[in-house]
Amino acid sequence: MDKIQEILQQLSLEEKIALTTGANNWQTVSFEKYGVPSVVMSDGPHGLRKEQVDENNPNVFNSVKATAFPTASLAACSFDRKLVGQMGKALGEECITQGVDLLLGPGVNIKRSPIGGRNFEYFSEDPLISGELGAAYINGVQSNGIGTSLKHFFANSQEFRRVTGSSDVDERTLREIYLTNFEIAVKKGKPWTVMAAYNKINGCFATENAKYNENVLRDKWGFKGAIISDWGATHDRIKALIGGTDLTMPKEQATAEVVQKIKHSPELQKVLDRNCERLLALALKVKEQRDKRKKESFKRSLKPLEVAQKVAEESLVLLKNKDQILPISKKQKITFIGDFAKNPRYQGFGSSHVNSIHVISALEAVSKITEVSFSQGYREDGQDALQLRSKAAEKAKKSDLAVVFVGLPETYESEGYDRSHMKLPENHVKLIDAVSKANPNTIVVLQNGSPVEMPWADKVKGIVEMYLGGDAGGQAIVNALFGIVNPSGRLAESFPYKLEDHSSYLFFGGEGDHVEYREGVFVGYRYFETKKMPVRYPFGYGLSYTTFDYTDLVVDQKDDKASAKVTVTITNSGDRTGKEVVQLYVSPHKGNIIRPVKELKGFTKVTLQPKESKQVSFELDHRSFAYWNVEEKDWSVETGDYDIIIGKNAHENILVQTIHIVGDTVKNQKLTELSTIGDLLKNPNGVKYWEKISDRFFEAVTESGFANQKTDTKQVTADELEEQKNNDMYKLLLSLPITTLSQMIPEYSLEKLKQDIAEVNHGSWRLY
Amino acid sequence: MDKIQEILQQLSLEEKIALTTGANNWQTVSFEKYGVPSVVMSDGPHGLRKEQVDENNPNVFNSVKATAFPTASLAACSFDRKLVGQMGKALGEECITQGVDLLLGPGVNIKRSPIGGRNFEYFSEDPLISGELGAAYINGVQSNGIGTSLKHFFANSQEFRRVTGSSDVDERTLREIYLTNFEIAVKKGKPWTVMAAYNKINGCFATENAKYNENVLRDKWGFKGAIISDWGATHDRIKALIGGTDLTMPKEQATAEVVQKIKHSPELQKVLDRNCERLLALALKVKEQRDKRKKESFKRSLKPLEVAQKVAEESLVLLKNKDQILPISKKQKITFIGDFAKNPRYQGFGSSHVNSIHVISALEAVSKITEVSFSQGYREDGQDALQLRSKAAEKAKKSDLAVVFVGLPETYESEGYDRSHMKLPENHVKLIDAVSKANPNTIVVLQNGSPVEMPWADKVKGIVEMYLGGDAGGQAIVNALFGIVNPSGRLAESFPYKLEDHSSYLFFGGEGDHVEYREGVFVGYRYFETKKMPVRYPFGYGLSYTTFDYTDLVVDQKDDKASAKVTVTITNSGDRTGKEVVQLYVSPHKGNIIRPVKELKGFTKVTLQPKESKQVSFELDHRSFAYWNVEEKDWSVETGDYDIIIGKNAHENILVQTIHIVGDTVKNQKLTELSTIGDLLKNPNGVKYWEKISDRFFEAVTESGFANQKTDTKQVTADELEEQKNNDMYKLLLSLPITTLSQMIPEYSLEKLKQDIAEVNHGSWRLY
Repeated sequence: MDKIQEILQQLSLEEKIALTTGANNWQTVSFEKYGVPSVVMSDGPHGLRKEQVDENNPNVFNSVKATAFPTASLAACSFDRKLVGQMGKALGEECITQGVDLLLGPGVNIKRSPIGGRNFEYFSEDPLISGELGAAYINGVQSNGIGTSLKHFFANSQEFRRVTGSSDVDERTLREIYLTNFEIAVKKGKPWTVMAAYNKINGCFATENAKYNENVLRDKWGFKGAIISDWGATHDRIKALIGGTDLTMPKEQATAEVVQKIKHSPELQKVLDRNCERLLALALKVKEQRDKRKKESFKRSLKPLEVAQKVAEESLVLLKNKDQILPISKKQKITFIGDFAKNPRYQGFGSSHVNSIHVISALEAVSKITEVSFSQGYREDGQDALQLRSKAAEKAKKSDLAVVFVGLPETYESEGYDRSHMKLPENHVKLIDAVSKANPNTIVVLQNGSPVEMPWADKVKGIVEMYLGGDAGGQAIVNALFGIVNPSGRLAESFPYKLEDHSSYLFFGGEGDHVEYREGVFVGYRYFETKKMPVRYPFGYGLSYTTFDYTDLVVDQKDDKASAKVTVTITNSGDRTGKEVVQLYVSPHKGNIIRPVKELKGFTKVTLQPKESKQVSFELDHRSFAYWNVEEKDWSVETGDYDIIIGKNAHENILVQTIHIVGDTVKNQKLTELSTIGDLLKNPNGVKYWEKISDRFFEAVTESGFANQKTDTKQVTADELEEQKNNDMYKLLLSLPITTLSQMIPEYSLEKLKQDIAEVNHGSWRLY
Repeated sequence: MDKIQEILQQLSLEEKIALTTGANNWQTVSFEKYGVPSVVMSDGPHGLRKEQVDENNPNVFNSVKATAFPTASLAACSFDRKLVGQMGKALGEECITQGVDLLLGPGVNIKRSPIGGRNFEYFSEDPLISGELGAAYINGVQSNGIGTSLKHFFANSQEFRRVTGSSDVDERTLREIYLTNFEIAVKKGKPWTVMAAYNKINGCFATENAKYNENVLRDKWGFKGAIISDWGATHDRIKALIGGTDLTMPKEQATAEVVQKIKHSPELQKVLDRNCERLLALALKVKEQRDKRKKESFKRSLKPLEVAQKVAEESLVLLKNKDQILPISKKQKITFIGDFAKNPRYQGFGSSHVNSIHVISALEAVSKITEVSFSQGYREDGQDALQLRSKAAEKAKKSDLAVVFVGLPETYESEGYDRSHMKLPENHVKLIDAVSKANPNTIVVLQNGSPVEMPWADKVKGIVEMYLGGDAGGQAIVNALFGIVNPSGRLAESFPYKLEDHSSYLFFGGEGDHVEYREGVFVGYRYFETKKMPVRYPFGYGLSYTTFDYTDLVVDQKDDKASAKVTVTITNSGDRTGKEVVQLYVSPHKGNIIRPVKELKGFTKVTLQPKESKQVSFELDHRSFAYWNVEEKDWSVETGDYDIIIGKNAHENILVQTIHIVGDTVKNQKLTELSTIGDLLKNPNGVKYWEKISDRFFEAVTESGFANQKTDTKQVTADELEEQKNNDMYKLLLSLPITTLSQMIPEYSLEKLKQDIAEVNHGSWRLY
């Protein structure tokens, strides 16, 4: 018998129930006598928020000092698995020094709307980026023997009514968008735990949702860890246990009623045992790692602030660089403007809030390089202050160049509520207007957790999106501004012109406790590209101080199969070392399934010296071309043509090659008399039947006079129809129900037709 | 016993069954012995398509010669109930002369997408316009003692798989958009019959859909007539009978199985009797009217061609008139270009196709006024023909002014299939380019059944949308071009820049047999205005040769009630008699319900001499402000502010006044511990409870440290919260579940909280 079973047998029912909730806010229950330790958890995907346990001062913000790393919205822009992995590793080391076993992160939720309050904690609007970087983060943290909690599982993309609301999403959208992110992170990262979200999914609380927690996450994806409720997300202990939530956090003493219910149900006891096994496995893993660390005396391998700085440097995104105003030469007379240059907005608010050791402002960082003047520009409290603005404009006028630091104040973005708009504070916008009017050589640096509208974009020469840069953000932006680093971040989300442009705009927030995800799979760039809508800056967009050329796209595919090896060569055609994010999109030509016009299916980042070339390659597999087939409950590939696109970003294609794929054979698609003639002709037996019956049909059509008017009356073969499928008249024919044959053909009864269709049904047919 | 019951008792079961289907393609079964005549029906909302019954020539297109009136897409642009009524009256007279008892029209379906194949037969994207003009048409036809068939009931907005597809639409959207059109037409028009559509609605065939056919159409709206299946739309005779389809068309002999089933079911016999009663009532009504006509010898009161011309003249829409290029002076040297000037596209294809007596082309019409040159410009078959184009451009160069007639060829639009794009044929676009380059004084006349993309719009000085103008369309356009009539049509649908802009774009057509109406109520301008998307020409748009001023908007509302009388004064400020369409929109300020930013709630058309003023008035009632409340299964008005807008069109507001409405009290909205604090504060008892508990809550919040960071810690009253509802921090609070109170407040157990909530629930609360 293994250790877990041994312990389980010794635990009383009450002990088992106690094991499925916290001992307090941040620890699991320990059973010293059985060798079960208490697992210590801590908040903070971007830095530790380990609460000081002080009975006299329960202030939750009095957490242990720690390093704030860039938030996920910035780190995602690195498009760099290795770098995010390094951040994870550094965070894991922070955990070790603080005696934390399990870090509550990463958050990989999809940014359904730019106004989601917690977006800053999440990576992207795209599931591939979210999943891949989530996995990298997990692998980084867990390489230290520290666990992670992948969160928030799942479809948790708004803060409004987050504890009571239901995300109502069709199954295909769930699979392709809101689950794929987790699927990748789970399969590639193998997190020790997953955190069940606050919300409901299609009416069922995430904590109670066995369909996904057990059947999908565990059975299909092979997740072996424990599921932890988000803090306060369990509303019914028994339903949560059954639903696959092993641990309810924080401490929530089971009521007598709950204990009695379990006591009298062998079924429930089996469920409880199952959950306890998982929690015991977690605790023993923690013990093993602690023991290991005791033996090998621990020494940090990474300096957290250095890592934080590197992540910020490689992630911040150069959005505009007119007249190559950047990088700034030190010889110029420079002024920094805006309170954020001195008091940066560098992290989000809520459970991820870090008690920083030391925040480096841009002003502090620049002082080490050169002399710049500074003016505050706006009041922190949002009040208009013409004087501050005038002073700033005056300084701008007297300088060669002005860098304006603006963004979203802390109250604009937080866990717990969503934004109501996408605008900068009015006094920030007025400042940009005033400064850019005073001096056209204006550069705007944005500090914000999620996209803002930029009606002023045409008035300035440079724009850098630095998101929430963490403790070293100020150093990173200064290094980028002065060319000490070459910007290489790419937007991991679309920047629309205005909030209303977004696909979620009409239904985001929902009504009462229901939020309908009516845009379906058309999230972010999937919507903008399919609807051919212009955006301010597309997903994947970002400039560099150097330039890159793409050549030699080769798509190596065998026998029309849904898999391919794609290679392409990238050359640094400029005169400065730089990094390029190579993006591969797949675009299915129009078929029967409603799909986004393109989807990201591969990405990688390469460093290139001036004139250096590198070949990169991607492996595309069945999944790269597939959609979730609701009827088959599986991934299916449609037969048809697919464009393999190397894109500069989601909007701009660089190299394209089209391949043909013979897709999946779909079984059990029975024809009925109400199937269409188009359906019939997709069936090999149907084609034979059509070739037998169609001359009689066209004869009848001719006699009726219908055909006279607009088309030839000769028989049309299936092949001809296939060729003519874009001809409107044939569309009409293809859209008719098969019953029309018996209605039109004299003496061809419905009964006879039904018999014929039954015969046709002996085969199976292929998706076109 | 009444006549109907008397006949019913004499009919055998077989006779009853026979009565519920046609005697042939166009007639019901007669029972001479019981005095039941055969009802004669004919296709054609825009002109009679009475098939010649000739056993030797079954060609369906060999119909009796008749007048083609403008199709509904043009007639709708009149925004003129009286005029459409006159068209109906003229059509009714056509029926009398041809021995037709029942005209199969009008079609009031909503134009969900501009590419719906049958759009030309429908009025509008807006249910008010569709319903009001539908009712006017019905009243016109029926004033002759001729019946109508209001079609196609309902949610039948595409041709693709129209016989097998299901329109999957949420209930609120059905009620507000896809049923409101029918509701108005039924209530105000009282059609003799309604035609059940081909499609399914949420999986149930329209012919079998008792929920709507019986419970809504009859029970709620008071429809007293018979329901007829669209031709071939019945797939199961028994289900159709039960579903409220009284008459299956065309003739479809019942199988022995069906007869047996009815024979053995008293239930089904009751259903059959019910349906037969309705059909007998229809037949007797027909008989009564025939007898009446025999007595009073019939004489037409209207000349159909004159009416057709008037409708076209008052409906065509002047879209662009740069430099007042229109009206054309006869003194100018004019050239007409384009095959459509000679061989107009003047009607749609399919069951509405008329065998015209005489079609007046623009070329024929203009020859009566002045001399113009003509060139064909493009080949009818769509082939490129540089020579034709060059010749046209040459003529344009030598003229003062060129009028280019382009549009959609007949094969582009038809019953039976949808368009795949919104473009003009390439050879038409090239012609516009060539001509406008040769002579900037170019006017484009469009002949098409539904909107087209106009990438060339900036290149020409004038654009007139004449849709499909019927037999006299050529005369109407010439009269408009030369200022003999002053254009007064307004678009009854939005003209987007491109197809992709449309709200239905992503999901139109559907997958397999399901079409999801995911855009919900955001159809047409409701989408463009709410999403703040620019369009080429908005709904309600149209120019005149004169100008109008709007003054003195008065909104007379009593006691915050959801009703108002709105008056406004319109003045013709130009020097030419003209007609203005006065449009009233209602715009609810943001509430809890997701609603379009504005909706048309009133319209009227006034004729004004130069300098003349008229006051018009509108009555707004509860429904004008209401949304369909799915939970209450009724229309509800939210408490809040509403803008009353007099709009030049859907995009341009002229006069606005805001009123406050105290909305409906909603019962049975029980709070639970998972309701939010926001919900709580909408309940008067909840406010009292909050005032009792909140000081303890804020005390706890302060101690936890949460509040320290970002907000004051003093107690917040319900009133203050209401005031602060746009403050993000308060949004967080309002979004928390009530359980948070017991989680935060020491010694306030969940049990106690639940008791308190039960007490709160003794009241009822008002929608905010």
